Amino acid sequence: MAVVITRIERVEASVVSGFEGIGVATVHEAQDRKGLMAPHLRPIFRPTHVAGSAVTCEVAPGDNWMIHVAVEQCQEGDVLVVVPTSPCVDGYFGDLLAESLRARGVRGLVIEAGVRDVASLTEARFPVWSKAICAQGTVKETLANVNVPVVCGGTVVNPGDLVVADDDGVVVVPRAAAVRVLEKSRAREASEADKRRRFAAGELGLDIYGMRESLAAKGLRYVDRLEDI
Amino acid sequence: MAVVITRIERVEASVVSGFEGIGVATVHEAQDRKGLMAPHLRPIFRPTHVAGSAVTCEVAPGDNWMIHVAVEQCQEGDVLVVVPTSPCVDGYFGDLLAESLRARGVRGLVIEAGVRDVASLTEARFPVWSKAICAQGTVKETLANVNVPVVCGGTVVNPGDLVVADDDGVVVVPRAAAVRVLEKSRAREASEADKRRRFAAGELGLDIYGMRESLAAKGLRYVDRLEDI
Amino acid sequence: MAVVITRIERVEASVVSGFEGIGVATVHEAQDRKGLMAPHLRPIFRPTHVAGSAVTCEVAPGDNWMIHVAVEQCQEGDVLVVVPTSPCVDGYFGDLLAESLRARGVRGLVIEAGVRDVASLTEARFPVWSKAICAQGTVKETLANVNVPVVCGGTVVNPGDLVVADDDGVVVVPRAAAVRVLEKSRAREASEADKRRRFAAGELGLDIYGMRESLAAKGLRYVDRLEDI
Amino acid sequence: MAVVITRIERVEASVVSGFEGIGVATVHEAQDRKGLMAPHLRPIFRPTHVAGSAVTCEVAPGDNWMIHVAVEQCQEGDVLVVVPTSPCVDGYFGDLLAESLRARGVRGLVIEAGVRDVASLTEARFPVWSKAICAQGTVKETLANVNVPVVCGGTVVNPGDLVVADDDGVVVVPRAAAVRVLEKSRAREASEADKRRRFAAGELGLDIYGMRESLAAKGLRYVDRLEDI
Amino acid sequence: MAVVITRIERVEASVVSGFEGIGVATVHEAQDRKGLMAPHLRPIFRPTHVAGSAVTCEVAPGDNWMIHVAVEQCQEGDVLVVVPTSPCVDGYFGDLLAESLRARGVRGLVIEAGVRDVASLTEARFPVWSKAICAQGTVKETLANVNVPVVCGGTVVNPGDLVVADDDGVVVVPRAAAVRVLEKSRAREASEADKRRRFAAGELGLDIYGMRESLAAKGLRYVDRLEDI
Amino acid sequence: MAVVITRIERVEASVVSGFEGIGVATVHEAQDRKGLMAPHLRPIFRPTHVAGSAVTCEVAPGDNWMIHVAVEQCQEGDVLVVVPTSPCVDGYFGDLLAESLRARGVRGLVIEAGVRDVASLTEARFPVWSKAICAQGTVKETLANVNVPVVCGGTVVNPGDLVVADDDGVVVVPRAAAVRVLEKSRAREASEADKRRRFAAGELGLDIYGMRESLAAKGLRYVDRLEDI
Repeated sequence: MAVVITRIERVEASVVSGFEGIGVATVHEAQDRKGLMAPHLRPIFRPTHVAGSAVTCEVAPGDNWMIHVAVEQCQEGDVLVVVPTSPCVDGYFGDLLAESLRARGVRGLVIEAGVRDVASLTEARFPVWSKAICAQGTVKETLANVNVPVVCGGTVVNPGDLVVADDDGVVVVPRAAAVRVLEKSRAREASEADKRRRFAAGELGLDIYGMRESLAAKGLRYVDRLEDI
Repeated sequence: MAVVITRIERVEASVVSGFEGIGVATVHEAQDRKGLMAPHLRPIFRPTHVAGSAVTCEVAPGDNWMIHVAVEQCQEGDVLVVVPTSPCVDGYFGDLLAESLRARGVRGLVIEAGVRDVASLTEARFPVWSKAICAQGTVKETLANVNVPVVCGGTVVNPGDLVVADDDGVVVVPRAAAVRVLEKSRAREASEADKRRRFAAGELGLDIYGMRESLAAKGLRYVDRLEDI
Repeated sequence: MAVVITRIERVEASVVSGFEGIGVATVHEAQDRKGLMAPHLRPIFRPTHVAGSAVTCEVAPGDNWMIHVAVEQCQEGDVLVVVPTSPCVDGYFGDLLAESLRARGVRGLVIEAGVRDVASLTEARFPVWSKAICAQGTVKETLANVNVPVVCGGTVVNPGDLVVADDDGVVVVPRAAAVRVLEKSRAREASEADKRRRFAAGELGLDIYGMRESLAAKGLRYVDRLEDI
Repeated sequence: MAVVITRIERVEASVVSGFEGIGVATVHEAQDRKGLMAPHLRPIFRPTHVAGSAVTCEVAPGDNWMIHVAVEQCQEGDVLVVVPTSPCVDGYFGDLLAESLRARGVRGLVIEAGVRDVASLTEARFPVWSKAICAQGTVKETLANVNVPVVCGGTVVNPGDLVVADDDGVVVVPRAAAVRVLEKSRAREASEADKRRRFAAGELGLDIYGMRESLAAKGLRYVDRLEDI
Repeated sequence: MAVVITRIERVEASVVSGFEGIGVATVHEAQDRKGLMAPHLRPIFRPTHVAGSAVTCEVAPGDNWMIHVAVEQCQEGDVLVVVPTSPCVDGYFGDLLAESLRARGVRGLVIEAGVRDVASLTEARFPVWSKAICAQGTVKETLANVNVPVVCGGTVVNPGDLVVADDDGVVVVPRAAAVRVLEKSRAREASEADKRRRFAAGELGLDIYGMRESLAAKGLRYVDRLEDI
Repeated sequence: MAVVITRIERVEASVVSGFEGIGVATVHEAQDRKGLMAPHLRPIFRPTHVAGSAVTCEVAPGDNWMIHVAVEQCQEGDVLVVVPTSPCVDGYFGDLLAESLRARGVRGLVIEAGVRDVASLTEARFPVWSKAICAQGTVKETLANVNVPVVCGGTVVNPGDLVVADDDGVVVVPRAAAVRVLEKSRAREASEADKRRRFAAGELGLDIYGMRESLAAKGLRYVDRLEDI
C-alpha cells in the first residue's frame, strides 16, 4: 500500500543556486501567479530564504514515522515537504530531525502541520515553514508514501520540483519550468530595480504604469468633496 | 460609479505629533473604549508606533489598482487605510508601493487584506498592519472609491480621522475628537505613571482602586480550601 | 456564588527550579503526552521559558476584576493562569498588572484571552502566553472564582499544579507528579543528547530507532520510480 | 456614558412591505453591492425572509442587559440589531425575549453574537441571524447604547435603516435610499425573470450578456487539448 | 499505558429520565452556568434532545480503534463521549458503529472530531454532536483510554456524569449534582413558563425583572435624539 | 494567458450511473482513502447525492466571468468544479447560472467559494457544495482557465475525473480508476450490509473484526476502577 520512490529527478544545482536571494513574490509573478502555497504556511523565524528540490513525504495524522523514512531519501540541496493525510497540527518535527536533515545538507522543511523545539530550530537557523507550532508529539505506527505527488498548502508538489520559500511564503516551480522561471524572475528583478528608483524619487504608479487613461475610460471621477457627487 | 475625493480635512500636524509615543490602549481608553479595530490587524514587525490622518481606499478583491490612485491623494503625515470590498488575503502591497508612500511622507499602512515583501518592508521599517502576509499578487481591472468612509477591522474610518497604531493594534479617533482625546490620553498617562509606581512598589490593585468593599458587597467569599465551601 | 481559595499547596521550589531550561516538548513526552494546552496559546515574545506553580483565576467575558483579586493570592515562583467563563479576546492584562505580579515574584502569565501593552511587556521581558493581542479594555463588574480547578487551552489546571511554558507552548504537570516527571524529563534529555550527537553525525533515525524491520513488516516497499509499482 | 435614543425615523411601512419577497442578493446588487453584512451571520432556520427598520443595540460581552432596554424601543415592523462591544458568542437571546419582541410586532433579530433556545425559536418561526448558537447565558451588569450607529457584520447600521435578511444573509439599506433601492430591486427582478426564461431555455450567458467579443479581446483562447497550447 | 475502566457509577435511570425535554440552556443556568461544552459541538440534525450517563473514550488522531473498545462498556441509557488526544476532524464514526450503539441502548454520541454517514444517521435519527462532518476514514493502530476523565469542548467529563444535549449544545452535570440540578431545572422551567406568559402578553423585561431603577442608578439616560446628548 | 480546453475525456455514462446511491465515505475507502476534498465544502441542502464527470473552472477572486465560459463546455452528466485563484467567499453562483447548468443536464456544482440564491437553489433541488453562502456579487473582468487541472478542497481534480458528492462531502476519482473503484465500492457495500446486520444484532466490532488479541498484544488493560491501576 505504501511506497518510497527512490529515484527522483531534481532541479540542477546551478539553477537552484540561481534562485538564492530571489523573493517568493517575484518567482510567483514570474510564473504567472501560479504555485503559491496558502498563507497559513509561515516561517518559524524571519528573515529567511531557501531554495531547493522537493522531497515529498506523506504522514498519517499524529504519526511522524514516514519522516524518518523520507530523511534517507534527502540529498544536499533538498527541501523536505511533509503533508498529513488529514489535517493535523501536532509537532511532527523537532531538533533531532533537524540535525538529521542538516547532516544531509537539506536546506529546510515545509510542513502542513505543526513543529516543535522552535527555540532550538531558531537558534540553529534551520528554516521551517509550518501551519502551527505545537509541542504535541507523534507516534510511529502507520505507513504512507514518500516521493509521490502531494498537495501542500493547496498546491501540487511533485518530487524534484523547485521549492522557494521566504518571509512571504512558499512557492513551487515545476522542475521543467525552473530555468525559464529563473530567467523571468531575473528580468523581473531588473525591471523592479528601475521602478523602485522611480517610486523612491516620487514618481507615481499612475504615471510609471500609465494608468490615468484606463482609469478615466472605466469612469473614475475626481471630485473635491463627497457632497459634490 | 467610483470616485476619488480630493479635498479632505486632516487632523492638525501639531495634534498628530502629540500622539507620538502614546499607546493604542491608552488612546482607546481615553475615548471610552471606542474605535478599536479588530485584533486580526497585526503589525508586520514589532515594536512599532505611528499616528497620522487617514486616507481611505477601497479595493476590489484581488485587485490593487485603486491603491495607486490613493497614493496620489496622500500627504506628509498620512496613514493609508485600505479595505477590500469583500474579504481577501492577497498581497496587495509590497516594497514598490512602500517606496512610493515613503516618498510622500506617509507614516504607514493599515490594510484589511494581505501584504508581501515583508522582509524588505521590515528592513526599511515601513510600518504595516495587515490581516495576512501573502505573496499572491493582484490585478488592476476594477474601480473603487478613494476617501469615502469605510469600515476597517469592524470600525468606521472617515477620511482625515486620526489613526494610531502600535504593537497592540489600531485605533481610530474621529477628527473632531482628536484634541480632546489627546488631552485625556495625556491625563491618563500621567495617572498611569503614578499607578505604575505604586504597583511596582507592591501595592495591590485591590487597594489602589479600593475594590475590597464592592467585591464583598457582591458576595465574594474567601475560604481556606475548596472543601470549606 | 464566587469564592477565593486562599490556601493551596504548591510544588516545592527546588522541584520547580529543576524544570528550568527543560523544554515543554520534553516535559510533555515525559508525562506520556498529557497535559499540553492547545497551540493557540502563544508567547508574546521569543525565546522564553518559565516554570511555576499555578494560581488559577476565572474571569467573566470582558471583565478583569478577578485578576486583581488573584494577584493577592500569588507568591514568589507562581504562574498565573486566567480563563474567561466564555470565549473572549479582550485585553485583560497590561503593564500595570505585570508590575504588580512582578513585585510579588510571579514568573509569568498564561491567559486564554487577550493581553495588551505588549511592547512594554516585551521590553520588560515579562512572559505571557495568550490567545490574542488586543487593546480592548475590560470592566470590573462581575465576580468569578480564584484557585478553583479550571480548563485552560483544553487542559485541566488545578491550583498548585506545575506549569511549564516556552516557545513551543504550555504544559501542565499535576502537583503530585512533578517529581516523577522531572526525573523522567532529565532522563529523556540525557538520552536525547546522545541521539542528537548521532543524528548530527549523519546516522539515520531508521537505524538509531531500528525501524527498518517494522516498516518492512507493515509492507513498505521501495521502488525506483512511480511507474514501477 | 450610556444613552437610549428614543426618537428615530423609520422607513415608511409601505416601502418596507415592498421589500417582502425581494431577495438579499437582489437588494445588494440594486444598491451597487454595498451594505452587505459578513457571511458569518447565518439564519437559524431556512427558508426565511424579513424586512424592517433597524433598532440598534450595543451590549457588553457576556451581558444582555441592554437588549431588555432595546425591546421597549421596538415597534411593529422593526428588526432588532444587536452588536457586542467586543467579540462574544454567548447566547444573549432566547425564547422569552423572542416572545417579547413578537408581542411588539418585531420582525426578527440580527445579532453578531450567539443565541439559544433555537428549537423553540425555530418552532415558533421567529427569524434570527446570528454568529453562533450557544447555550451560554449572560449577566445584566453593564450599560451600553441603544439606537446609536453601530457596525454589524462589517457594515454600518444607523437606527431606522432598512434591514433585509434571507437565506443568503443580511443587507442594510440607508433609510434615505430605501425608495430608490426598492425601485431598482424591482427593475432588477423584472429583468432577471426574463433572463431566467432564456437561461432555462438553454441560451448561454455568453450570448445573453454578449461576452464573446470582450473575452476574445482580453485574449481567451479555445484549444482542443492542453497539449495544443 | 492504556486502560479500560470497566466499573463506573452512573446517574440513576429515573433521574436521567427526569431530564427528558429539559433544554440545555435551562440545565446550564440551573447549575450556575457551568459545564457547557464549546459551541463548535453541533448536532448533525435538528431538533434533537438526549440525556444519559457518559462513557468516555479517548482516541488517537485519525484512529478510531478505541471506539470499538468503548462500545462494549456502554449500557442502556448511556451517551458516548469521544475525544481525540490531539485535534482531528476525521470521520471517526459512521452508521455501523451507530447500529452497534443503538443495539446496546445508547442514546447518542458527543465527539470532538468528525463523523460520517450523516445521511444514514439522520434518517435513523441517531443523535450526534460533532465538530465536523467528514468522510475521511481512520485506522486502528493506537491504544488510548476508556472511562477516564476527559476534557471535551473545554469541559471536564467524568465517566458516569450526566450529559444533556439538544439544538443549543451539550452540557455536563457532575453525577453527584444530578438530582439537585434536576430540581433546580424544573423550578426554573416553572418560573420561565410564567414569565413566558407575561412576555407574550406584552409586559417588558424591564418591568418583569424590575430593572429600571438599577439602570438609572448606573447612569442610563434616555434622550430624544443623538444631537440632544 | 488563459485557455479553454474544449475536448476532455469523460467517465463513461454507464460507469457514472453505477455510482448513484454509493456514498462518498464508501468511495473514499474503496480508493484507499484518497481524493477527498476538505470538509469545509458543505452541501447547501441535505440529503443530496450526485456523481458526474468534472468540468473544471478557475475564477479570479470576486469575478465569475469564467463560469459563463465554463457552462458552454458542460454536458449532460457533468459536475462543474469552480476554484478561485486566491481564497474568496463571494457569491459567484446563483439561480440564473443554475438554470443554465440544469438546461445542459449538469448534475451539480462544487465551488471552493460562496454561492447565493440558496433558497431558490434548495427549492429547485440543484445540488451545490460550497465553502460559504454569501450574497456578495462578482464582476466580470478577469480571464482564467477552463478545463485545466485544479486543486479544490486540497485535492487535485483533472477535467473528466469522476466527482461523487453527498451529505458527507466530495470525493474525486481519477477517470482511469473509475471502473475499478466502482467495483471495489460495490464489494465494500456488500460487505458492509452483512456487517450492519451483525452490528444491529448486537455483535461487537471487537469480535466482528477480531480485535481483542491485537489490543491485548499492544498492552490494553481492563481494570475495575481508576484506583486499581
